[in-house]
Amino acid sequence: MARWMHAAAAASLVFICQSANADEGMWPFHGFPLDRANAALKTQLDQAWLDRVRSATVRLSNCTASFVSGEGLILTNHHCVESCLAELSSKEKSYVEDGFNARSRNDEVRCPTQVADVLMEMEDITAKINAATAGKADAAANDARKAALTQLEQDCETASRFKCQSVTLYAGGQYWLYKYQRYTDVRVVFAPETAIAQFGGDPDNFQFPRWCLDMGLLRAYENGSPVKSPNYLRVNFAGPAAGEAVFVAGHPGTTQRLLTLAQLKQLRNVELPQWLMRYSEIRGRYIQFAQGGEVNDRIVADQLTGVENNIKVRRKMLDSLHDDTLLARKAAEQEALQKSIAKNPKLKAGFGDPWKDIETALATERGLFQELVYLENAAGFQGRLAVYARNLVRGTAEREKPNASRFREYTDSALPRVEQQLGAAVPVYAELEELRLGNSLERMREWLGPDHPVVRRLLAKESPAGLAKRLVSGSKLADPAVRLALWKGGSAAVAASDDPMIEMWRSVDAEARAVRKVYEDSVEAPIRNATERIARARFASLGTSVYPDATFTLRLNYGTVQGWTENGKPVEPFTRLSRAFERATGAEPFRIPDSWQRVKDRLDLNTPFDLSTNNDIVGGNSGSPLINAKGELVGLMFDGNIHSISGSYWFDDVKNRAIAVHPAIMREALSKVYSADALLAELGK
Amino acid sequence: MARWMHAAAAASLVFICQSANADEGMWPFHGFPLDRANAALKTQLDQAWLDRVRSATVRLSNCTASFVSGEGLILTNHHCVESCLAELSSKEKSYVEDGFNARSRNDEVRCPTQVADVLMEMEDITAKINAATAGKADAAANDARKAALTQLEQDCETASRFKCQSVTLYAGGQYWLYKYQRYTDVRVVFAPETAIAQFGGDPDNFQFPRWCLDMGLLRAYENGSPVKSPNYLRVNFAGPAAGEAVFVAGHPGTTQRLLTLAQLKQLRNVELPQWLMRYSEIRGRYIQFAQGGEVNDRIVADQLTGVENNIKVRRKMLDSLHDDTLLARKAAEQEALQKSIAKNPKLKAGFGDPWKDIETALATERGLFQELVYLENAAGFQGRLAVYARNLVRGTAEREKPNASRFREYTDSALPRVEQQLGAAVPVYAELEELRLGNSLERMREWLGPDHPVVRRLLAKESPAGLAKRLVSGSKLADPAVRLALWKGGSAAVAASDDPMIEMWRSVDAEARAVRKVYEDSVEAPIRNATERIARARFASLGTSVYPDATFTLRLNYGTVQGWTENGKPVEPFTRLSRAFERATGAEPFRIPDSWQRVKDRLDLNTPFDLSTNNDIVGGNSGSPLINAKGELVGLMFDGNIHSISGSYWFDDVKNRAIAVHPAIMREALSKVYSADALLAELGK
Repeated sequence: MARWMHAAAAASLVFICQSANADEGMWPFHGFPLDRANAALKTQLDQAWLDRVRSATVRLSNCTASFVSGEGLILTNHHCVESCLAELSSKEKSYVEDGFNARSRNDEVRCPTQVADVLMEMEDITAKINAATAGKADAAANDARKAALTQLEQDCETASRFKCQSVTLYAGGQYWLYKYQRYTDVRVVFAPETAIAQFGGDPDNFQFPRWCLDMGLLRAYENGSPVKSPNYLRVNFAGPAAGEAVFVAGHPGTTQRLLTLAQLKQLRNVELPQWLMRYSEIRGRYIQFAQGGEVNDRIVADQLTGVENNIKVRRKMLDSLHDDTLLARKAAEQEALQKSIAKNPKLKAGFGDPWKDIETALATERGLFQELVYLENAAGFQGRLAVYARNLVRGTAEREKPNASRFREYTDSALPRVEQQLGAAVPVYAELEELRLGNSLERMREWLGPDHPVVRRLLAKESPAGLAKRLVSGSKLADPAVRLALWKGGSAAVAASDDPMIEMWRSVDAEARAVRKVYEDSVEAPIRNATERIARARFASLGTSVYPDATFTLRLNYGTVQGWTENGKPVEPFTRLSRAFERATGAEPFRIPDSWQRVKDRLDLNTPFDLSTNNDIVGGNSGSPLINAKGELVGLMFDGNIHSISGSYWFDDVKNRAIAVHPAIMREALSKVYSADALLAELGK
Repeated sequence: MARWMHAAAAASLVFICQSANADEGMWPFHGFPLDRANAALKTQLDQAWLDRVRSATVRLSNCTASFVSGEGLILTNHHCVESCLAELSSKEKSYVEDGFNARSRNDEVRCPTQVADVLMEMEDITAKINAATAGKADAAANDARKAALTQLEQDCETASRFKCQSVTLYAGGQYWLYKYQRYTDVRVVFAPETAIAQFGGDPDNFQFPRWCLDMGLLRAYENGSPVKSPNYLRVNFAGPAAGEAVFVAGHPGTTQRLLTLAQLKQLRNVELPQWLMRYSEIRGRYIQFAQGGEVNDRIVADQLTGVENNIKVRRKMLDSLHDDTLLARKAAEQEALQKSIAKNPKLKAGFGDPWKDIETALATERGLFQELVYLENAAGFQGRLAVYARNLVRGTAEREKPNASRFREYTDSALPRVEQQLGAAVPVYAELEELRLGNSLERMREWLGPDHPVVRRLLAKESPAGLAKRLVSGSKLADPAVRLALWKGGSAAVAASDDPMIEMWRSVDAEARAVRKVYEDSVEAPIRNATERIARARFASLGTSVYPDATFTLRLNYGTVQGWTENGKPVEPFTRLSRAFERATGAEPFRIPDSWQRVKDRLDLNTPFDLSTNNDIVGGNSGSPLINAKGELVGLMFDGNIHSISGSYWFDDVKNRAIAVHPAIMREALSKVYSADALLAELGK
């Protein structure tokens, strides 16, 4: 299912990656190596092909998608639609569990917090940013860079109808302004039951062979009508052949392929183990909570799936970092670069030792890591209500500053999305809020220690669970009208509020801001400076024949349909429907839903189900179209195999495989199981 | 609280450790460096002192303890008595929560499964074992060694009234037979409430300064009467002075100070991360289960405390292994030894490359690791009922083989303890059994994969939770009479049983045995052979001026009362009662019980509470007496500071500190809070 949480990108660093393997690379559309791809695959792609694919590809808030009809119909994964389905559900009715099937346009329901972006223009702003930071010391340059990026976004949005977002590529080797057509009225059209969308559940996640109908359909609306999307991808229900050239357009979230050795060790030694312990415990709490009855099971399902997916990703990332051969390879690359710099007097001048500077900054980070995680990154304050409180306290205060001086998540460009989320009517389940907040407060006490000032203040006379219960039951922030009133009232209204959740965040905001300030000035700034120096040195020797690390911005890559060899045995690139029935146990997550059982006799059990390719994708590519050389959609990416997770750090062309839903099973399901004839007609079949 | 689970020792390897620091070392009583200790501490200990301390020290099944009166009164930690208290509790009454206070000998209640051992004699059997294995290849030598150890234990028990257990020291450099006086009638006399015994709970665990009255009193009985224990330790209620020479006698469980670099990496890369994820999830399930009401909270408390303690230990162990300086130090030591061997033709002859042999065996282990953990080590089958089923199926089958051919845990010497546990009337809570078994089956499916034959067979038509519910509700093994009947009926009775828990284990026993066989022959045997070669080389250059790794057998070490420096600030070695009241929040685990609040005015708030020393101890030393040069008990060890956890791999004399309860707070509590006047009189005050 390869879910990817967009929030993770904010703190990530970006680097230049050299494409060592034929099919490796997540190329921006302004840097796609057309000649190289055509030569490797014997295809004849041209700029028009690229333009059409670009404007057919959609970025959701959490995933990728694509237009598949001229009337705004958007195909993505079930797991990308799941949070929308959960927001539309209640204690009584779960669209996650039961699926969703709009019989007509009138039945299509707006997703409370989803957006759909289409990339329209890309502008290189590198020179402007470099001018803004020239001659400044680390921390000042860091501030100036952020201010300049905010200003350029603001100017762009003033001058155009687009949503403008800056993009840092090559660790600051390039800065771009990406301009999107944004649709904020995105409606759910179709989703199958989770039981078939995520057949095999967590045990099968990141495995192949696989049998998941991980599809969902949305539709973009504007002014109450479906948008026109003439550049859509036609679905080719026959799917691709083994060995056929295929392309994935999408938004890979984060890769860290050129972190320094010291940064990889920081992940391995500090961040990943602690994260895995924290979320393994939450997993246990969610599972046990779900045992409390059908309602509990229903309201926690979406959260639990997300947690389990992230655990699987991170534990394989940790495995990768525990693989000494990977670290040795990284060390050798680093050493080779250092040697080539030492030999080049031009590069060497003023170069300093960026690797050492990074190590120093990382030592600083270790010293403030727990406070950073628990206070500023809010690991101590989990749950929807706590997030609302934080956004209200922070957002109203930041909004009153000049745009360029604000935290980047509250600039004018970002505020409409903040407001959309504050105003969205989504369910807030008190039991789940208590669980999440209580757990996070308890772990904050564990890791900051019971004598930390914030912990002492909050928990002087209460247990974490007791405090959580009091805050959740006393807060009115579950009501969107209350949230919007505070938001509109600004910092004065927030300061006057006696909502206990607001009071709680007000009491810790200063300390959280203080930690962030130290982090930005003493960790982020010197690392940014050092990585820019490393990037420049790398650029000097390799030029733009390299691709930047993933940043949840639009990329294209190429490959072929193929399996791989596991423990000496070949893994075929296609699965078929029959085997899903054979593997079914009748119990979740290996249960084939009744809707399928009822029509089993009429199904073609030989229908291709899922397929594997060697495209280089990671989380964020979920929902990406798999495209053939003719520009047709021949698959729907939803996952990678287990080896693909180390794709965060390097691309292993021998074993790293991407996984897609085959179009044939979509047709079989829409036609025979879900009787979605109008949709099939719209899809051209 | 430093709980230490004895089971962990079974699979551990033992090595020779060189004592680098003045106060480092866990010395067996037959190898204690009297002259060196007397010189370092300016004391005059002699053999009589050693003999008296040895016969006053007690080994419990999970901890250390000591006789503190002539009438069999045994002092240990509250957390060492906690499992007994839990076994005596019910859904309605928790002695863990409320404490236990026998007003007279008649009120002392037998612990269902506890034993108390006193070490009486030690016999060197190295030559006999070496003779048994001489000239044999790895796997055959491994089998022959186990058979010889079993035979020697059997002969010893036939010839004496002692419980005889073989001990492997110096990784097979020495073999000993330890002969114990065993008491199986051990009764609980006194325990305070958990709230004060474990004040600060998990957040404070492995921290200092500290305020825990982590004490419990037991009494050994024989033929219905208290045993005579003339060699008891007199309690000196004044406690020790700062800087005073102090000694700890006890049973450190496991250290791994001379694992090879490859073995340390196996722990770091494979074992510890997976263990931490598994138990963090269980922690979450237990905490959420406890939210289900007072009864749930009560019946899971003991398990949860144990899990949290083990998590803290292992996460600091992982931190240690992620400390590159530690690994570099280990690498340097290994290299130095390799060089000294290369220079010595006598050592070099026939030495081979044991480090390489270990690496090969570890690679084999990685290939079977999940099956080993989930099947043979039963991580897939957790809970009391599953353990009973396994012991019944395995134990009855093994019992019918010749003694020397059995698994070592079912030899004649081991059987009485197996039978004691099968026959003990202890509570079995169905809800908790379902949780534990369901969770472990679910994780087994995750890690072995849904298509593993065992997983397919067990879960072909059921969910893990569904299967757990069916097995727990259908099993009769909660009844000790049912268990004993099956045990007495032998393998025929077990084969005929239709108890679903028995059926479950019967269906997987062959596969579990098969994995064990491969592990023993292809991992354990070559590693044992290789480590013996390394040990001999080390012996050759260092002799017995070194101490063996910990093996849950009796050791003595020496040190002084002292604090340390943390972040540039001194930590004083004593805490006082007043600060406990200041830190109390009123909510668990920072709640001071009513019994103390009621008499607060009468308490001397200046009473010393806990203290720290630089003795070299680890888990298993819990409950150990802290002894002064006069042979008086001046403290009760119950924990180490956070730095002590890396004591598994090395002793850091700068920061590694042991923590004890001060005798003064015991007197204050027994006198003013618990009115235990008879006990105080027996304790000589």
